[in-house]
Amino acid sequence: MSDRITIDHGSGGRASLELLQSVFLAGFDNPILNNTEDSALLTINRERLAFTTDSYVVEPIFFPGGNIGDLAVNGTINDLAMRGAVPLYLSTGMILEEGLPIADLRRIVASMRRAADLAGVRIVAGDTKVVPAGKADRIFINTSGIGVVAEGVDIGGSKGLPGDKVILSGTMADHGITILCQREGLTIRGDFASDTAPLHHMVAAMLAAQPGKTHVLRDPTRGGVATTLKELATASKVGIVIRETSLPVRAAVRGACELLGIDPLYLANEGKLLAFVAPEAADQAVALLRRLPHGEDATIIGELTADHPGEVLLETVVGSRRRLDMLHGQPLPRIC
Amino acid sequence: MSDRITIDHGSGGRASLELLQSVFLAGFDNPILNNTEDSALLTINRERLAFTTDSYVVEPIFFPGGNIGDLAVNGTINDLAMRGAVPLYLSTGMILEEGLPIADLRRIVASMRRAADLAGVRIVAGDTKVVPAGKADRIFINTSGIGVVAEGVDIGGSKGLPGDKVILSGTMADHGITILCQREGLTIRGDFASDTAPLHHMVAAMLAAQPGKTHVLRDPTRGGVATTLKELATASKVGIVIRETSLPVRAAVRGACELLGIDPLYLANEGKLLAFVAPEAADQAVALLRRLPHGEDATIIGELTADHPGEVLLETVVGSRRRLDMLHGQPLPRIC
Repeated sequence: MSDRITIDHGSGGRASLELLQSVFLAGFDNPILNNTEDSALLTINRERLAFTTDSYVVEPIFFPGGNIGDLAVNGTINDLAMRGAVPLYLSTGMILEEGLPIADLRRIVASMRRAADLAGVRIVAGDTKVVPAGKADRIFINTSGIGVVAEGVDIGGSKGLPGDKVILSGTMADHGITILCQREGLTIRGDFASDTAPLHHMVAAMLAAQPGKTHVLRDPTRGGVATTLKELATASKVGIVIRETSLPVRAAVRGACELLGIDPLYLANEGKLLAFVAPEAADQAVALLRRLPHGEDATIIGELTADHPGEVLLETVVGSRRRLDMLHGQPLPRIC
Repeated sequence: MSDRITIDHGSGGRASLELLQSVFLAGFDNPILNNTEDSALLTINRERLAFTTDSYVVEPIFFPGGNIGDLAVNGTINDLAMRGAVPLYLSTGMILEEGLPIADLRRIVASMRRAADLAGVRIVAGDTKVVPAGKADRIFINTSGIGVVAEGVDIGGSKGLPGDKVILSGTMADHGITILCQREGLTIRGDFASDTAPLHHMVAAMLAAQPGKTHVLRDPTRGGVATTLKELATASKVGIVIRETSLPVRAAVRGACELLGIDPLYLANEGKLLAFVAPEAADQAVALLRRLPHGEDATIIGELTADHPGEVLLETVVGSRRRLDMLHGQPLPRIC
């Protein structure tokens, strides 16, 4: 490992994982802090709570489909939902660069409020710091969140079982390609927009309709679907096979990815979930998701196997199998 | 108000309050988010929880007495303690600048771990982002925290009563003067060190020894003792009188403040609390604090009055009275 922080350490791929393991997990070392979960599961007296934190440094701060504010609110809601929690309360810690137009700040705050209202959560604690011009990039937002986990709900990255179906709730790479094209000033033909959206309603519906049938939930953000699946294969000690022909990608997004030489499997999503669901429940789960907002393109993309634990294989269009690894060697900075 | 963010918006004084009120409270608008409390009080089913967030951007990141890491952990522990909560769990969201030496990061993480262990809290959730060189200043840390509030505990900025004594748990301005001297490269004669320390043990002892007698707790960080008292006078709708001769300030700190033309009443503290305590309980509370770590210089500095609600008066050495306002017009950037 390099002796200095590199952009790659923030891309959500292999370098991020190495930093996490060698510095943070080694340093903080406790059983609740878990590298493969989106939020910590706490038991405080009689309550089971999920607790999570995320900092947002996305550039640009305004982009088609959203801005850093609703991205931050939805992202933390989703990290709570991926433990099966009902999100309740958020905090927001802002780091502002001197010179930021207050009109921009108001617009961001209004988006945060709207996103929170839509999801039925409240922003109850906040903090604001200011740094001199040149010491930050306009605005960075931390959102932390608390949710409640109902009795009997037991969702976690290590709970996948061979035979489980892998469900993806919609198209891949919309957020990542939108940010990259904005940043590069690319005017690729295509109507891109970030998919930033809350996912807790999908989780609530799945858990209510088929209790115990959903084993793993994860939103494939930094590092994309491929990196997330690789993490989950490792955590659940299962193999995963996904079929390239089943992967939902908008045609324009696919075209842009080809042009940029980037695999949509490695681009960030901000309003999609992966679910590992018991095989007998998978079709009903997909049908349910398709009736919900942001779930119309939900589909089964593969399944878990007892073979090749820890490995993710992609069955390509031509029938060959390709091993998918975590994102590495291709830093995608400040995607969220 | 300026149409752009200025350094003054981050100083914890009047400009910060204006930004808070006009942008954040107006935008997020809900009854739990309260501008005068250090943490939000939540009731989740049967549990009463305190929830707080703070981002740390202190410069320099290493300073006599501590670094950005233990500062962040202690600061969030203290924000929980100031609602009478027992701090339990922290999250940490890091924003790292490309090029940060990983040895520095390890040192900071080790300090965070040590501070958490000392206080009996656990760091259970984390997130790391990286931005390119020149887009941040080495490291910014957000710490959010959860604590439990026991039944019957009712501490808040609006609970002060006329007659209450104002207790300060130790000397003023140690953190602020240390940071300012470090940053300016000043070699003022004097053995300065930040007072960064956890305060929850003081709170637990006070609440256990004299239940119901402590009405208000607050740690006077950004903006210092004067700004904090002004906020509390407003929130409790009481007047406050403090005596200049009672204010504990180390001689070397006082000298440095005179040299820099800064009033120690406006400099940040990171290991001190202000308590408004029922008059009959105040002497015992001071005696108790003096027996605890970091409390040896605890003293009564004044009292609350029914007169001049919302105003803080300083009885000077020569017997005159001077009105203390919030910090304004003297930006002290990145003090925490």
